[in-house]
Amino acid sequence: MPSKDSKNLVKARKQELLALLRQLGKNTYDEVNEGKFPQFVFPSRSVSNIVYDPRVKQYVLGKNNVKRSAGNIKHIRPFTQLLWLAYFADKLVTEGKTSTLRDVYYSSQADNMEFVDQSESDEIITDLEALLTKAREDFMVYPEDRSEIFGDLTIEYTVPGYEGQRLNLSSHPDGYAIGPSLSTSQFVETSAEMVIAVEKGGIFTRFVQEKVHKKYKAIIIDTNGQAPRSTRFMLKRLNKELNLPVYLMTDGDVYGEHIAMVVISGSANAAHLRELTVPTAKWVGVWASDIVKYKLPTDPMTEADIKRAQELKKDPRYTAGVWQRELDIYLKIKRKSELEAFSKYGLTFIVDNYLKEKMQEAKSL
Amino acid sequence: MPSKDSKNLVKARKQELLALLRQLGKNTYDEVNEGKFPQFVFPSRSVSNIVYDPRVKQYVLGKNNVKRSAGNIKHIRPFTQLLWLAYFADKLVTEGKTSTLRDVYYSSQADNMEFVDQSESDEIITDLEALLTKAREDFMVYPEDRSEIFGDLTIEYTVPGYEGQRLNLSSHPDGYAIGPSLSTSQFVETSAEMVIAVEKGGIFTRFVQEKVHKKYKAIIIDTNGQAPRSTRFMLKRLNKELNLPVYLMTDGDVYGEHIAMVVISGSANAAHLRELTVPTAKWVGVWASDIVKYKLPTDPMTEADIKRAQELKKDPRYTAGVWQRELDIYLKIKRKSELEAFSKYGLTFIVDNYLKEKMQEAKSL
Repeated sequence: MPSKDSKNLVKARKQELLALLRQLGKNTYDEVNEGKFPQFVFPSRSVSNIVYDPRVKQYVLGKNNVKRSAGNIKHIRPFTQLLWLAYFADKLVTEGKTSTLRDVYYSSQADNMEFVDQSESDEIITDLEALLTKAREDFMVYPEDRSEIFGDLTIEYTVPGYEGQRLNLSSHPDGYAIGPSLSTSQFVETSAEMVIAVEKGGIFTRFVQEKVHKKYKAIIIDTNGQAPRSTRFMLKRLNKELNLPVYLMTDGDVYGEHIAMVVISGSANAAHLRELTVPTAKWVGVWASDIVKYKLPTDPMTEADIKRAQELKKDPRYTAGVWQRELDIYLKIKRKSELEAFSKYGLTFIVDNYLKEKMQEAKSL
Repeated sequence: MPSKDSKNLVKARKQELLALLRQLGKNTYDEVNEGKFPQFVFPSRSVSNIVYDPRVKQYVLGKNNVKRSAGNIKHIRPFTQLLWLAYFADKLVTEGKTSTLRDVYYSSQADNMEFVDQSESDEIITDLEALLTKAREDFMVYPEDRSEIFGDLTIEYTVPGYEGQRLNLSSHPDGYAIGPSLSTSQFVETSAEMVIAVEKGGIFTRFVQEKVHKKYKAIIIDTNGQAPRSTRFMLKRLNKELNLPVYLMTDGDVYGEHIAMVVISGSANAAHLRELTVPTAKWVGVWASDIVKYKLPTDPMTEADIKRAQELKKDPRYTAGVWQRELDIYLKIKRKSELEAFSKYGLTFIVDNYLKEKMQEAKSL
C-alpha cells in the first residue's frame, strides 16, 4: 500500500526539477550581473572518472569535474548548447509536452541552435543529466521504445488532459504500454507483493494467461529485451515507492544475464544516475545451470557469444556470486537456451514448475 | 458503429477454424479407413508460384499445388509434422492458450515430434496457413512483438478469464499493447471515423498529446517500425469490420515507404493470406517530395539506402503512382528524413500543420 507521501512524490519531483532548472538560470544571470563569465560545473563522464562502487552495486562517477565557461572560447559552443537545453527542458516540463532525443535535436533548429548531428545533442542531454543529477525523463525526454505492464496497480495520471484520472492496470491482459503517462503517474493502490519482469512478449502473455499475477500477487512486466529506460525507471519506482521486491527472468544466454544486470546496476554510460537502477532486484533465471538441471533444448554458443562471456567476466560486476558462476558454466558447456525451451515439457511448465522452484530458491539468494 | 454481425465475427472465426482442422483430421482417418495413403494438398509457396495480382494489390499464389502424402517416403516427415501441427493447433484453440513460433518448435519435443531447428517448424506452420488459408494467429501462434493502440473503441474480450469483459481503449494515453487478447476481442462500439497509424512510439505519444484522436475522430496506432503481424491483423479488422479508412504515416525514407507498402499489400512470404493486408489503406507521408516541400532537415542516403530504392523500383507494387514517383525523388535528392524532423518548426507543427495538410491531400489520393 503506497503511503500518503508516495502519492505526492511525482509532483514533488516535478517541482524539484523546475527549481533546479531555474536556479541554473538564476546563477547564470547573477554571474553576468556580477561581471563574471557564467559557467557550468558538473562531474566528468570520461572513462577515467567512471568507477565501480560495490556498496551501491553500480558504476558511479569519481571526483573529477568538468567546466563549461562562457569565458573560454573552446567552451562557448557546449556552454550555449547546455544553456539552450536547460531553457528547452523548462519549456517541456512547464507545458507538459514530451519529446525524444531526436525531437530535441530537431527542436534546436527552431531556435537556430547549432548541433552538427544528433550525437552532439545526445551528448549535451547527458551533460544536463549529470549537471542536475536527474534522468532526462524527468525533463520530458523519453525513449521511443515501449514495453508492457500488467497487474493490480491503481495509478493516477498527472499528465495534462488526464490529471486526476485513475486506472487499474489489470483489465487489459495484453498489457499497458509504459510511456510518459505511466512514468509520471502516482501510485494509488496495489495488492501486489512483488514485481516479476520477463524478457519477452510471448512469455509475458503466458504469465498473464497462467495467472502469475494472482498466484504470486505480482505485477508482471515485459522488458522487451534490453529494458527501455522508461521500463527501468518504472521498475525503480515500484521497488522504491511501493517497497516491492523485483525478480528478473531472462533467456538462458549471456545477453539475458546482462539484461538482468543492467536493470540491477545500470550501465557505465549512466554512471551519473541512480534513478534507473534496482540494486536489490534478483535475477532468478534462466541460468546456465538451469540449462543443465532442466535438460533444456539448446543451441551452441557462437564465437560472438563466447567472446561476450569472456568480456563480461572482466566486468567488476561479474566477479562474484551467481554472475561469475553462471558465466563460468556458459564457458564450460558452450550452449545457450531460451525461456520458450521449457515448452518442451508443455506450455504451462514454465509457470507451474520452473517459476515456482525459482521463486522458492530466490528466498535464499 | 459495428453491426450485430460483426460482434459475432470473432466467435465465427474460431468455429470455422476448428471445423477446418477437424475436417482435416476426418479426411485423414477416412483415407486410412478406405485403405488409401492419407495426404495433404495445398498451394505451392515456391517463388515461381508467387505472382502479383494488381486487382487485389498484393502477391498471391498461382495454380500450382504441392502434395504431402504418407505414401511417399520423402513426404512422410513433412506429412507427419503437418499432421502433428494441426493436432497441436486444435489443442491451442480449444484450450484458449497462445503460443509463439518458438513455443511451437519446443512443444514438438514434448510429443517427440522431430524438427531439426526452428526454421523447419516455422516452414510447417506456414504450410498449415496455406492449407487452411488462415493466418497462424487464428490457430494461436502469435508474434513476440507488440505495438500500441489508443482511441475511442470499446472491445469485448473472448479470451478465457476475461470473456464478456469490456474495455474502452481511450483511458491510457501511453496506449494498449496489441496482443492475443485484443486481436481476438469483439468490437462493440466506436465513435472513430478513421485509423491513423504512425511508425514510432514518440510520434504516437505526440499524436495522443495533441489530441489527434479527437480532432480527427481517429484511432491511433503505433506500428513500432515494420508493423508486427498482430498489428497488421488489427488494422485489417478495423478496416473491414468497422469500415474505417486507414492512413499510414512513416519516416521520410525508403524503409518508411516500404513499411506502408507492407501494411497495404503484405509480403511475398504471406502471398497465401488475405488477413494481414489493407489494400485500401493510404500512405500519406513522409514523402520524399515532403522533404523538399517542407524544407526538412535531412541526412544523406547511404549506399544501402540507394540500393534498396533501386530494388523497390523493380517490385511490381512500386511501378506506378505515388510509390514510383517518390522513389524517383529519393534517387534524385539522395536525402532522407524522419517524422521528428518537423520539430524544427516546433513540437506541434507535425499535428497542427503537416497532418492537417496531408489529410486534406489524402481526400484526392
